[in-house]
Amino acid sequence: MNQPFITKEKIRFQHVDYAGIVFYPRFLEMLNCLVEDWFEEALDRPFSKMHTTNGIPTVDLKVQFKKAARLGEILTKKLWVKNIGGASLLCGFRFEDEQGNTCLEGEVTLVNVAFSEEKNAMKAAPFTEEMKTKILKYLV
Amino acid sequence: MNQPFITKEKIRFQHVDYAGIVFYPRFLEMLNCLVEDWFEEALDRPFSKMHTTNGIPTVDLKVQFKKAARLGEILTKKLWVKNIGGASLLCGFRFEDEQGNTCLEGEVTLVNVAFSEEKNAMKAAPFTEEMKTKILKYLV
Amino acid sequence: MNQPFITKEKIRFQHVDYAGIVFYPRFLEMLNCLVEDWFEEALDRPFSKMHTTNGIPTVDLKVQFKKAARLGEILTKKLWVKNIGGASLLCGFRFEDEQGNTCLEGEVTLVNVAFSEEKNAMKAAPFTEEMKTKILKYLV
Amino acid sequence: MNQPFITKEKIRFQHVDYAGIVFYPRFLEMLNCLVEDWFEEALDRPFSKMHTTNGIPTVDLKVQFKKAARLGEILTKKLWVKNIGGASLLCGFRFEDEQGNTCLEGEVTLVNVAFSEEKNAMKAAPFTEEMKTKILKYLV
Repeated sequence: MNQPFITKEKIRFQHVDYAGIVFYPRFLEMLNCLVEDWFEEALDRPFSKMHTTNGIPTVDLKVQFKKAARLGEILTKKLWVKNIGGASLLCGFRFEDEQGNTCLEGEVTLVNVAFSEEKNAMKAAPFTEEMKTKILKYLV
Repeated sequence: MNQPFITKEKIRFQHVDYAGIVFYPRFLEMLNCLVEDWFEEALDRPFSKMHTTNGIPTVDLKVQFKKAARLGEILTKKLWVKNIGGASLLCGFRFEDEQGNTCLEGEVTLVNVAFSEEKNAMKAAPFTEEMKTKILKYLV
Repeated sequence: MNQPFITKEKIRFQHVDYAGIVFYPRFLEMLNCLVEDWFEEALDRPFSKMHTTNGIPTVDLKVQFKKAARLGEILTKKLWVKNIGGASLLCGFRFEDEQGNTCLEGEVTLVNVAFSEEKNAMKAAPFTEEMKTKILKYLV
Repeated sequence: MNQPFITKEKIRFQHVDYAGIVFYPRFLEMLNCLVEDWFEEALDRPFSKMHTTNGIPTVDLKVQFKKAARLGEILTKKLWVKNIGGASLLCGFRFEDEQGNTCLEGEVTLVNVAFSEEKNAMKAAPFTEEMKTKILKYLV
């Protein structure tokens, strides 16, 4: 039975809005960090190496925000693979508070792309077999 | 025939990532600005007045990112109402570049809430009839 | 008598913190937008053209935050040149509220740089005479 | 001999700009996190408790940006006290890369304030003796 990739993130002053709860675009920054950590720690493909030639832009995103998160809370962020295509990846995710309540959950589609020389064009690039093998360890 | 609410926004240096395209959480900040402008300019309910006692948190979001947007581009942002409930609102949105191509589109569900005295609790609050009338002008 | 470069910016929901006032790193984003607008509108050097080969990183910043700014306020942002070196530029700036009160003021040093081919190195590049002439119109 | 307060922060995709280096307002977010951690971990005054009644707005900031920081680098952030007044605090700070090079350094003045009931006013509030004692442990 495969397991999701898991990290934690603390709600910071910079994340919250006037109402004292996380401003939702900040949650998407946290989601991007989750993907970034997964690529670096689990898939051996750190963004710092990858981003001169390749990228994994987000092409589709669905999120349900279920519970507000407040300053000082530590969220557990979970990511898993729902489906893998030639050059694309459908991931599920869920952020939970310290009591195990779901703050948000959803799914995100990422596409593996290669940049052309001038960095003004990009095209879908299939995952290598090695990469696919690593990704499939998170298929839940 | 009703029309969508429309504003424009220019892609700034702070919006783009290492690949020179808009980092997607910045698109969601632009979406939040679109909702903010709509509430202020079309619904006579500026966030600056509203946010001590009320809010309209986003509870559901679906976005398809279709075309990268680059530094200096001016996007046309469109918002319209797809459905209105007692205290909730389903809106469609689309961001287009100067050639009319869709950069992103999707739908967002907002809930009208009232904060309790200590701002540590919030509960759904039905829209007034006056508010509903204004909102319905954007039902497309 | 030279005049400063002037633009306006409205305080948005995304700019304010839990206390309902602008979170100060957002003021620096607004300052960066001011520099960006000045380069595009007054110096004919839009960031969208410049940033594949050149940049103007900030090397020194001094700011006094004098008055909190709140959601919905429209700030007037002023920028002027205090000194110009071979490849560097010392600018003064001030943000004022609608009553003319100073919210923040300070000075910022920018350096004109050229990126090397791999974008992993940058070195100071002197301003052209044409560029200097345009810049000097804002020497106050 | 007193020691500075020290934390680490990794440079994330969301921090870097088109040139692949940290966009400087993101450095100020990192500085705010450093102050936030110091208040929580060293001064027993977590922002999550403090911010309904009190705040510590930044009133003066001086920064020299000395070396660009890139995606994936882990910075060591140091903060220390240079001077303490009745309700204000002058702190020095320095961010260093993994080789010990200074990326940025400067000083920041914070003021301890109390919010009035409606959160629309704030006034300077002297530090308690207990708080002063804790702060003075970081006087370098």
